[in-house]
Parts: sequence; C-alpha cells; structure tokens
Amino acid sequence: MKRIIPLVSFLLMIIFQGFGQSSDSLMIKKISDEIFMNGTAYSNLKYLCKKVGPRLSGSAGAALAVEQTARMLREAGADTVMLQPCMVPHWVRGDKEIGKATLVDGKKIDLNIVALGNAVGTPANGITAEIVEVKNFQELEKLGTENVKGKIVFYNYRMDPRYINTFQAYGEAGVYRGAGPSRAAALGAIGVIVRTLSPVLDDHPHTGATRYEEGKPKIPAVAISTNGAVELSILISDKKVKSVYIKTNCQMLEDAPSFNVVGEIRGSEFPDEVITVGGHLDSWDLAEGAHDDGTGCVQSIEIIRALKALGIKPKRTIRAVMFINEENGLRGGTKYAEIAKQESKKFIMGLESDAGGFTPRGFGYSANEKQSATIEKWQSLFVPYGASEFKRGGGGADIGPLRNLGTALIGLNPDSQRYMDLHHAKTDVFEAVSERELNLGATVMAAMVYLVAQYGL
Amino acid sequence: MKRIIPLVSFLLMIIFQGFGQSSDSLMIKKISDEIFMNGTAYSNLKYLCKKVGPRLSGSAGAALAVEQTARMLREAGADTVMLQPCMVPHWVRGDKEIGKATLVDGKKIDLNIVALGNAVGTPANGITAEIVEVKNFQELEKLGTENVKGKIVFYNYRMDPRYINTFQAYGEAGVYRGAGPSRAAALGAIGVIVRTLSPVLDDHPHTGATRYEEGKPKIPAVAISTNGAVELSILISDKKVKSVYIKTNCQMLEDAPSFNVVGEIRGSEFPDEVITVGGHLDSWDLAEGAHDDGTGCVQSIEIIRALKALGIKPKRTIRAVMFINEENGLRGGTKYAEIAKQESKKFIMGLESDAGGFTPRGFGYSANEKQSATIEKWQSLFVPYGASEFKRGGGGADIGPLRNLGTALIGLNPDSQRYMDLHHAKTDVFEAVSERELNLGATVMAAMVYLVAQYGL
Repeated sequence: MKRIIPLVSFLLMIIFQGFGQSSDSLMIKKISDEIFMNGTAYSNLKYLCKKVGPRLSGSAGAALAVEQTARMLREAGADTVMLQPCMVPHWVRGDKEIGKATLVDGKKIDLNIVALGNAVGTPANGITAEIVEVKNFQELEKLGTENVKGKIVFYNYRMDPRYINTFQAYGEAGVYRGAGPSRAAALGAIGVIVRTLSPVLDDHPHTGATRYEEGKPKIPAVAISTNGAVELSILISDKKVKSVYIKTNCQMLEDAPSFNVVGEIRGSEFPDEVITVGGHLDSWDLAEGAHDDGTGCVQSIEIIRALKALGIKPKRTIRAVMFINEENGLRGGTKYAEIAKQESKKFIMGLESDAGGFTPRGFGYSANEKQSATIEKWQSLFVPYGASEFKRGGGGADIGPLRNLGTALIGLNPDSQRYMDLHHAKTDVFEAVSERELNLGATVMAAMVYLVAQYGL
Repeated sequence: MKRIIPLVSFLLMIIFQGFGQSSDSLMIKKISDEIFMNGTAYSNLKYLCKKVGPRLSGSAGAALAVEQTARMLREAGADTVMLQPCMVPHWVRGDKEIGKATLVDGKKIDLNIVALGNAVGTPANGITAEIVEVKNFQELEKLGTENVKGKIVFYNYRMDPRYINTFQAYGEAGVYRGAGPSRAAALGAIGVIVRTLSPVLDDHPHTGATRYEEGKPKIPAVAISTNGAVELSILISDKKVKSVYIKTNCQMLEDAPSFNVVGEIRGSEFPDEVITVGGHLDSWDLAEGAHDDGTGCVQSIEIIRALKALGIKPKRTIRAVMFINEENGLRGGTKYAEIAKQESKKFIMGLESDAGGFTPRGFGYSANEKQSATIEKWQSLFVPYGASEFKRGGGGADIGPLRNLGTALIGLNPDSQRYMDLHHAKTDVFEAVSERELNLGATVMAAMVYLVAQYGL
C-alpha cells in the first residue's frame, strides 16, 4: 500500500519517457517531499498577512513587506538579495466611505460601499443625486445624456456563474469597474456605483482599480456588495429611491519610492540565462492580501528555499521576484523588464503565481513554438501532482513586460472556484489559505523552474 | 471573449467524438447552467448543517435529517420519496471527555481529547495509568506485554504529508484508530490515546470509529489533537510525565430504528434499470457534517432537482439515496443492497460522493471490463468541467454492498487537499464549503448519472 501511486508513476515514466524524464520525476518528488515536510511558505504567509498586513503601493505596509520578504529570501538561502528602486502611485482611501439611499418615504438605507482603487474622492460634503440603474453599457448608451446627466449610474452587472473558470466571468464583468466611470462621465454622470465582482451573495464589497479615460471628467466611483446591489436594485425597480448620497475620501498623492525585491540563485553553468519566478508584493488596503498575492510571493521564496535545502545547484540563474504595484499601476513589472533589458543577460522564462494559492491545475503559457513544445514535453511529469492541464495562452501581469525580450511567459493556473469570492475583499485573509494547497502550488512551480533551469527553453 | 472555452470544447467534441457526444456535451452544459444558475444544493446544505446539525445514527439529529432530506427530495420534484427502515447502532458520547497528564513535578496538563466512536467509556472515576508512547505497531510489539500491561498506549503516528492524495496518508494512519485499541489491549493496555488523523497542526481532535477485535478486552480509546500530541510527546521524551488520567462517558446503547431516504425519478424506457446516486446522511456528533457528508446528500438531491427543472426524462430509473449509518456501522448501505437484491430490478450503477464537497477532479470506478470501457468513452465530456481524471478502482462505502449484484460502482473524486484538515472534527462546518465547488461536484455527478441513464452500462 505504501506509496503505490508514486511508484506506478515512476514505472510509467521509465516505460514511456525514458531515463531522462524518470530522473526528473525523482528529482521533482524530492522537491515535493522537501516542501511538504519542511516548507516555510505557510509560516511566511502568516507573517505577511498578520504581521505586515495590507500593503498597497506607497503605504507603510508595503515598505514593511519589502523589508520582510527580503529577510525571508535571505533566510531561504538566496545567494543575493537585491532591491530594485521603483516609483509607485500612492493612492489612499482615507476615512471609511459613506453611502445612503434616501427613499421616497423619507427613510434612509445604508449602502455597503467602498471606493474603487485610483478613484477620485467626492467633495467634502459628498455627492447627492438621483440614481439610474443599468445592467450593461448598451443600456447606458440607450439612456443617453438626457437620462444620465447629473445622476449617479449604478452598474448592476451580475458575474455570470455559468463559466466554469471564474476568470472568464471576471473578464466580462471587469469592464464595468475599469471603464464604467468614464463611460458614465461621458454622458454627464457625477458618480458611479458598480456591483461587486463576485459570484457569491454576501456583504463584502470588493475594491479594485478603475481606469479613467484621458479627456473625460474623473468622477467618484465605488463598489457595492452583492447583497447591497440586489437590495438596491429592488428598491429602484419599486421606484422607492429618491436620491443617493455618497461620500468618499480617497485621493491620489504624489508618486512614492518603493522596490521590487529580488532573491537570486546564481546558475552554475549558464548564469547569464535568467529564470524569473514571482508574485506581487502589494495588496489592496482592505485585505491581508493572502491569495492576492501573498501566496505567489511565499511560493516563489519557497522555491529558493527548497532548492537550497536540497543542495540542488541549478544550471541557470533563478530569480524569485516580489513585484511591487501590480494592483494599481504595474510599475514594478515594468521596471523589472526595463532593468532586464539593460542587463547583458538572457531572460529565458518568467513564471507568475497570481491567481490564488489554491490547488494547482496546470499552466498557461505565451511562448514561441519551440519554447511551447519544450514545455509540453514535460507535461506528464506534472500528472502525479494533478497539475498537468497545459494550455497555450496565459502568463501574468507582472511578467508581461518581459515578453518584449522574447521571454517565455508562464502562468500558474490554480483551481479558480473560490478566488473571486474573496478577491480584493476583506475576506482575503490567511485563514482562507490551505497549507497543503499552497505547498502543492509551490511544488509544481518549483518543478517547472527546475526543468527550465536544467534544460533551458 | 464570450465563452471561448465552452465553444472550443464544443468544436473539439464535434471533430473528435462525432455528433452523439456533441449532443451529450450540450445537454451536460444545460445541466451545468441550471445547477449554477438555480441550484439549491448550497441552501439545502445550510439547512442540514445549521438547522439539523450533527446527526449521528440513533440521535434526534439523525431523525430530523431523515425528515428534512425527504422534504428536500419532494421539493426537488422526485416522483416518489421512500423511507427504507433500518436498525442502526446507537452510540452516545455523553459528557465532554476529560484528559490530564500529571507531571513529575506535580503540575497537571490538560489533554485535548475526544472519545473515538463506538468506544467503551471509562469507569465513572476514569482511568489513571502510566503512559507509553509508540510511533507504530512495530514499536508496540517490541515493547511487549511487560512494558505495556496496565498502561495507557499513546499512538503518535504522524500522517505522512508527502502523499499528494491525502486519502493515501489517511489509509496508512487509519489503522491506529481502527485496530490500535485491540492491539494494545492484547498486550494488557488499559486505554489508548491516538494522535488525530490530520495533516495540519491545530487544536481540534478528530473522532471516528474504532473497531474492537472479537475476543480482545474492550478498552477506552480517545483521539488527541495534533498540537496536543506534539506537546505530550515532548513531555514524555523529557521524562516529565508521571501519569495520565482519562475520563470518557460514551456508551453503546441498544440498536435504534432509522431509515435510508430514497428519492426516485422513474425511468421512461427502462424503469427496471436502476441508477443509485448518494451520500450518507449520518455525521459524527462533534460536527455539522458539512463535507462529511452533507455535501454528498445535497448534491444527490440536486441531480433530481436539475433533471426535473430541465424537463429531462431519463430513460432509466434514478434513485438519490441518503444512506444512514456510514460512520459507525454501514447498516444503511447494507440494508439498501439487501432490499435491492429482493427487488426484481437491475441495479446497474451506484455513484457515491463521500470525499467532501471540493472541486471535483474525476471518478474512480470498480466495474467489469465492459462497464469500465463504457465509462471511459465518456471521459472527454468531463474535460470542460475539470473532472476528467478517470481511474479504475474506487467507489464508496455505502454503495459497496451493491457490488455483489454486479452493479458498477463509481466514486466521485474531489480534490483531496483540504478534506483531512476537518474530517470528523468540529471544523467540518457549512462555512468550510464553497458554493461553486459544491455545485461543480453536483454538475459532474449529474452528467455521469445522465449518461448512464440514457445509454446504460
């Protein structure tokens, strides 16, 4: 009974893959055992969530996160730990937002709202206006300026629960958070309320960045919880709402100094071929940023730790990178690629974990044909870890700018069912992360990094 | 962007599978959409966990669960809802257990324990004895009667975290909970403490059934939390423990009357070919029994509801079964097969969900070659739902007795990473279940039931 599945896998490897892959499968099993027996990703994540906490770009939390992940990388045994200076946007929420609906009978209802990231605040006395609900942009355009001007637009777009991969639903619904304010402002709206991007009904509004369009008025924009959206919609369709009041206190300050944190193992044979593996260090201010993206950070650190603990000397250089400012600017990822371009090294592969610390299902990759074929040759090695769904297309926001250097980009694809429930909400806490799921993600990332380090792409 | 993956899957189906499977894939997508849009599994689970609560065989909770799941099946639209009478063991825990270690310096330490299911209680004044720790049965046998007699044996076997599938580790560690008390009693031990079967370190002891061996003295047996086990082990190796005191108040009462609950959709063409799909209704007394096995019950009910809501008339009869007494007797599963044997029907397939309401990964099946080949023909239909890991071997405890009737047995295999953290512990609550994961499990179960209902095996 003892370890039947690994043994069977091992035998299958020998039969079908030849000795090369069977020695790889043994090495991956060693890495897996090391991570499950002695891994520190979970305790590092606890520190990042509970001792550091929220770490939006420019905040004291972000500065502490830089310091502490640099420490973790040193403790993991990185040969070198570097900080890459990088200016970041510095948006602050200010005091808690207030939202009220005044009903035609004079009664007032609290609206459960949070300002969207990067949004402008309201004037000090807030904004008060009639509200107009639309389900989508088509409905908005149909209403036109005459029905929108001077009002607050309520985008009540429900994330489609029918997609099995929740990122598809997120992609569709996300345009209302991103482009909704400017689209409404173009028709004269003075504020926007967006239904929270979540497939579940609860009382936790999710924040996230909005993007004002150049040349359009910047108007205040908030997210309302899904329960709040349902309730508000009923009141509106019953013609019970007289006006809505919103007060937000957010503002964009001057850019602030920050850093990417980079921990490196120097390659033993091809030190000038660099593998980048990372997550983003910043998180929204409302959350501990456990799944988004503390898990990606600590998994990347764990790869360094496990390889060092096992005495593995990778042939190519491995850099674990904590990118700053993914959430509201992508300055860290941009800066990393800028510096990479100036270095006389070859950045052969970037791997990012920024879809939560859930059970890994596989990888998505954006690479040329030769790189893709090499990656796909390794697919069977990931079967014993349940992470063999290999798909063309994918990568990650922070590693995206490396694409211009010919770098193959790979994104870890964890199971997506739970991510959108807590994404950008205060429920994204350490307790929502499973130690084993986190370690399994680190294991398959380490396996991919190991293979690229040994064989190149 | 809209639904790219389902479209691609659909096209692939047409190309590779021919029109038959493409119409099946469309029907499965309809079922999936129905479950994700209008599913009631999650609200039923909430009722079962929060309004009914713990429901160990013979308890008032179990009786209420029978009544309420019968109601849910009627509301789901079952053609017939039947109760199958079945006598069940009636074990009761009694007052909360007490465990203390008296140290050599006179200090007393609380031991965080719960009685194992089916165990005998201690005398009214408890038992006090020296403690002897072993890591496994080999160590126990080596100690022999001279070092065990009159003592309490502490099995400190750590679940092996290196197995990717946690059920493998559970299988290995489970023997200490099951056979540990009798093996220790055979050497004269007067009580047993078993380290909780969990891969995580926390303060929640997990219960679960022990099995006394015929002809051996029945001695009290408890589980200690993993943190408690680690602490106790350190004290023992430091030679600081003078004696241990255990008081448990459990007892096995007379068998009690209970029921399996069965909801049926009568087959339109082959009503005498019966498909059984189920979970078990009973749970341990410490927990809400959310993942074990409320999820299996409400998923099975959801299959009835979704098929009825879509107006699908299955060719073969489908029975959703809430089996009673899986945890400490298997009387419900045994009774169901007994009755099945007497019916002049053919029980062609049994599908069980009893590994938690987590994201489904695939199915394991115990069936003859022809049945297995038919099941495997459908594998590609489950790719869009991430549940295409089809493996020979598997089934479920409650459907197991059907095997003697030639029934093909299929077990749903959800992701196993989180299950053992909360299995049989008070942390197995409604809040630990993801609505989408639960619905995805129901979806792929419904798909399998639909295919067998239409094509037979």
